[in-house]
Amino acid sequence: MLSEFSLIDRFFARRAQITRLGDDGSLGIGDDCALLAPRPGEMLAISTDMLVEGRHFFPDIDPHALGHKALAVNLSDLAAMGASPQAFTLALALPQAREDWLAAFSDGLFELAERYGCDLIGGDTTAGPLNLCLTVFGSVPPQLALRRDAARPGDDIWISGTLGDARAGLGVLRGEWQADAADTATFRRALERPEPRVALGLALRGIAHAALDLSDGLAGDLLHILERSDLHASVDVDAVPRSAALRRLPADIQRRCTLAGGDDYELCFTAPAAARAEVEAAGARVGIPVTRIGTISDPFSADRPAIHWQDAAGQPLTLTLQGFDHFHAD
Amino acid sequence: MLSEFSLIDRFFARRAQITRLGDDGSLGIGDDCALLAPRPGEMLAISTDMLVEGRHFFPDIDPHALGHKALAVNLSDLAAMGASPQAFTLALALPQAREDWLAAFSDGLFELAERYGCDLIGGDTTAGPLNLCLTVFGSVPPQLALRRDAARPGDDIWISGTLGDARAGLGVLRGEWQADAADTATFRRALERPEPRVALGLALRGIAHAALDLSDGLAGDLLHILERSDLHASVDVDAVPRSAALRRLPADIQRRCTLAGGDDYELCFTAPAAARAEVEAAGARVGIPVTRIGTISDPFSADRPAIHWQDAAGQPLTLTLQGFDHFHAD
Repeated sequence: MLSEFSLIDRFFARRAQITRLGDDGSLGIGDDCALLAPRPGEMLAISTDMLVEGRHFFPDIDPHALGHKALAVNLSDLAAMGASPQAFTLALALPQAREDWLAAFSDGLFELAERYGCDLIGGDTTAGPLNLCLTVFGSVPPQLALRRDAARPGDDIWISGTLGDARAGLGVLRGEWQADAADTATFRRALERPEPRVALGLALRGIAHAALDLSDGLAGDLLHILERSDLHASVDVDAVPRSAALRRLPADIQRRCTLAGGDDYELCFTAPAAARAEVEAAGARVGIPVTRIGTISDPFSADRPAIHWQDAAGQPLTLTLQGFDHFHAD
Repeated sequence: MLSEFSLIDRFFARRAQITRLGDDGSLGIGDDCALLAPRPGEMLAISTDMLVEGRHFFPDIDPHALGHKALAVNLSDLAAMGASPQAFTLALALPQAREDWLAAFSDGLFELAERYGCDLIGGDTTAGPLNLCLTVFGSVPPQLALRRDAARPGDDIWISGTLGDARAGLGVLRGEWQADAADTATFRRALERPEPRVALGLALRGIAHAALDLSDGLAGDLLHILERSDLHASVDVDAVPRSAALRRLPADIQRRCTLAGGDDYELCFTAPAAARAEVEAAGARVGIPVTRIGTISDPFSADRPAIHWQDAAGQPLTLTLQGFDHFHAD
């Protein structure tokens, strides 16, 4: 059994920025606090996520994938704000300090961190039921931040990438439905190794109005933009982008996965109709497909549903699907 | 059972700063990220702590005390850096969403947060074994930050308040030793409701050299200053300040509690001998007693212990006590 301090040293501190990060007085691991500042004229965008075994990942998850995913879901929040990643802290409760597990976990974590230039600047480790809590820090000019309350009537609603693969993968793992080996690998990769849309978030600064990342499913997450912006939306469920693998599953499962799936970590954002070409160009520049799925409409009124769902033929649909909510049975 | 979002709304968001914190563009709970900046010319001091049931608190802890302690131990890290509290995030895993528990927990948390003007700006809640992860943010001019690597040969070593009461309280709860009802209440208060030394940390800016907060015990924590500053220390164990209640326990238990106790959340700091009057005045100004317990000595050499322990008569002591380490059995 490793002691706490040798554990931190061996797997985290040596790959973190131990002391000064730069010439600006910033300070990393090894003191009571880290010291960090946003870029001049900008603010720090801060997000925190807690991942629990059995809830956010299976007990037998590959620790390399877990290290990747724990940071990816946090970077996804920075992406949704249009913020540029700077640093993160990691608090870790572990039932035991297994060296092979920690080596693989820290490899998965740092491979992603290094790709985004995101330094580990602090943390905590303790014995306890497996729990990962990360807090990430990005830098963004406040007037360019992609806020949830910034949607406007007439805005298009856009989605990056494709939705539903992660939920399809969960269904295969749970035995809810089957897929062939290649499609299963596609789904499982989406579930275990989501890619945060950081470059797209940055490219959408000054173009998009509102944005968020899809962690709990489109149906539930889009509501957050509508509630905070006090608006309604109309969405064409058949326009929601799906992978070729997902299109091979039955149509009702496709809808369930794309609309109420969760764990997609794609961006959902709104932008003025006049900016369609700019949005397409931003997506093309960073190599992420973007798809229009609906429109933001009138100011909110409580006597009708916040989202009007319709199919490609314009027929209204009644959906009872909900994004999952962590204290509901699901 | 409350759903996640109504839970957040009822107990946390309504007492948090929901949208704008000020005129500077800062943003609180309700978006993908909070937006925060340090004061002009300063940096954000950032610290994160994870508290686990059975490890950092007993399962039957009063939830009001737990809310207090969870934030207090984080504010203590800001104090040890000389930083002024600004904000915090809270990630919470709960086995169930019990309203009475959440009401008391959030009361304890916000009573302390409001006293220090520290806003809740973000968080996460999930089902899982009870786990609290807080990240706190303070503001400090980097050149005035009280860093662990800043001790100098000849510095005095100082302690705020008294040490050992929290460990004495743990011993009473565990049945390791007994105390009368009044002393037990004193010990238990120290264990459950530590007061972060924020005002003292601010008062020591520009006076103290190195500082840290005592969370794992003086013997272990002082080593962090010595290792980072590459120096030795000499400590008079009889000078270590103790409460009247602790002085009523046997002498060997007093030493064990003060030197290897943990959970004190007092500051240990170094300052030049020429600044003794200034240190005393800073303590008096904020109403926190400060006591000199030793001296920082020569540059480090590996052939002798980092800390030379002696009693009031100058007799050297050999101590095998260690601050506890979270992955050791203790």
